[in-house]
Amino acid sequence: MENKPYVIGLDLGGTNSVFGIVDREARIVERVSVPTPGHDTAELYVKDCVSKLLPLVDRVGGLSCIQGMGIGAPNANFYTGEILYAPNLPWKGRVPLAKLFETALGVPVVMTNDANAAALGEMAYGAAKGMKNFIEITLGTGVGSGIVINGEMVYGCDGFAGELGHTTIVPGGRECGCGRKGCLEAYCSGPGVARTALELMAERRMDSPLRNITPSSLMSKDVSIAASEGDVLAQEVLRITGRRLGEACANFMNFCSMEAFIFFGGPVKAGEALMAPLREAFEESVLPIYKGKAKILVSQLKDSDAAILGAAALAL
Amino acid sequence: MENKPYVIGLDLGGTNSVFGIVDREARIVERVSVPTPGHDTAELYVKDCVSKLLPLVDRVGGLSCIQGMGIGAPNANFYTGEILYAPNLPWKGRVPLAKLFETALGVPVVMTNDANAAALGEMAYGAAKGMKNFIEITLGTGVGSGIVINGEMVYGCDGFAGELGHTTIVPGGRECGCGRKGCLEAYCSGPGVARTALELMAERRMDSPLRNITPSSLMSKDVSIAASEGDVLAQEVLRITGRRLGEACANFMNFCSMEAFIFFGGPVKAGEALMAPLREAFEESVLPIYKGKAKILVSQLKDSDAAILGAAALAL
Repeated sequence: MENKPYVIGLDLGGTNSVFGIVDREARIVERVSVPTPGHDTAELYVKDCVSKLLPLVDRVGGLSCIQGMGIGAPNANFYTGEILYAPNLPWKGRVPLAKLFETALGVPVVMTNDANAAALGEMAYGAAKGMKNFIEITLGTGVGSGIVINGEMVYGCDGFAGELGHTTIVPGGRECGCGRKGCLEAYCSGPGVARTALELMAERRMDSPLRNITPSSLMSKDVSIAASEGDVLAQEVLRITGRRLGEACANFMNFCSMEAFIFFGGPVKAGEALMAPLREAFEESVLPIYKGKAKILVSQLKDSDAAILGAAALAL
Repeated sequence: MENKPYVIGLDLGGTNSVFGIVDREARIVERVSVPTPGHDTAELYVKDCVSKLLPLVDRVGGLSCIQGMGIGAPNANFYTGEILYAPNLPWKGRVPLAKLFETALGVPVVMTNDANAAALGEMAYGAAKGMKNFIEITLGTGVGSGIVINGEMVYGCDGFAGELGHTTIVPGGRECGCGRKGCLEAYCSGPGVARTALELMAERRMDSPLRNITPSSLMSKDVSIAASEGDVLAQEVLRITGRRLGEACANFMNFCSMEAFIFFGGPVKAGEALMAPLREAFEESVLPIYKGKAKILVSQLKDSDAAILGAAALAL
């Protein structure tokens, strides 16, 4: 296949669809955002997107300069190119989005979920360059994961591999959005961090600025800020969260003896307050033969670019 | 590479080293057993083995008819061809066993651990024929696992992937031989089954023939036999063991959305008393998107042949 100079990356979120045209040096040379809701059908959404995108494509030399397009989207299936029953997207049922864009643009289009896209972006442009065995763990509304083994993205038998956020870490523990109990996501997603803060406010008597935030609006960002300003309760929340992540990764290590675990997303901005206990618990918990072997890293992708670069990497 | 008609498989155990010459139809046409201990050095062990093996090789047409040799051994590293610090083998430190056999025989020799060999055997000759994503779980003195993803054996960055037996299933739980606590192996290996029997004898008051066996000699086989003869306590032990395995596999499913989990080894002989609760707990515990997708199977490799066939499959 001829190597053309650009790929298109689409970061498809519940609010916005952000398109970027990416060159071989991982520079996003053009960028445009389209609101995701507000179109009656997926067909009309694609039509609207393409009309906004084509002027940008023309500026880099037209569609003949585009190698392909990658889409990172929630509940996306790599094998079928469909989005399936995504709770936060406007379309219901199964939407063959890759096919719709492929028909409209005339370039190959591939799609995968956000966490897989982040892992591909990390491997092409970020902290995982040259690695063949690593897991990208995305902390946000949920806990996602993209797994690379033997240099290949792991999709599993149905395209839905990598739901490490729904690994049970506390049997019979906290309710999770998936309907089960004790999932990693219920403890270490953004909302999970806030739940740990509430739990600790109940257990401990110490003062904390977090006690002045209504629980319904308490976010992991508030915890990070309070911790950085010296609040001991918030620091303890991050320590507990980090240790839980470290223990979970120690278990994942059994699976594929990873070179690295790479963390991405809002809660990671807490920095060493989260990462130091994470590393510590990982090394304490991991099987002796794996000790000292895996790197615990923070993503090197810029937040605003990561999803686009990940989607773009998919098209390479 | 020219396809020669035979491969040699070596099942290297703490007591015996069993060699088989295997044809293209998975028939073991020649077989010989050499005691593993009793040689001063690994070099003398290899020399003894080769002297016993060569007459068999001559009967199938000589070394020119041998494609290669595969070794399944505890603590074997696929990448380096070494056995490392195996507690149940007579040699200490690192033993470059693949190299020693390769020099002595003049055919290519590859080595991996027993569970990986079983997975390869299952894929070449057994229940995993045609599968690209599955886990072979071997229940015995320990709990081993061989993982195949995208049609390839998973060795990890260091050759030591697949230690699923040391995944923590009960935080702070039973002591495990690895020095940690709550590992799957401490509950679902052969000795783990016996420990559950002791636990249940302490908790319950019901009568059981297991109460007449000294704890130091109680084995999972005794539990299977008692269960098959209608002992309710033994049946409950198998039910608990099966459910724990099912819950663990539901967690492993998150990793790679497997086509199948295939069970091998002594405790599996308990049959549906173990496998039915295993399947039930798996389907109850697995994330909704994975429900009904994975097969829970029993190995189709004959116990006495499995390790040799697995090692042989490695050489293919």
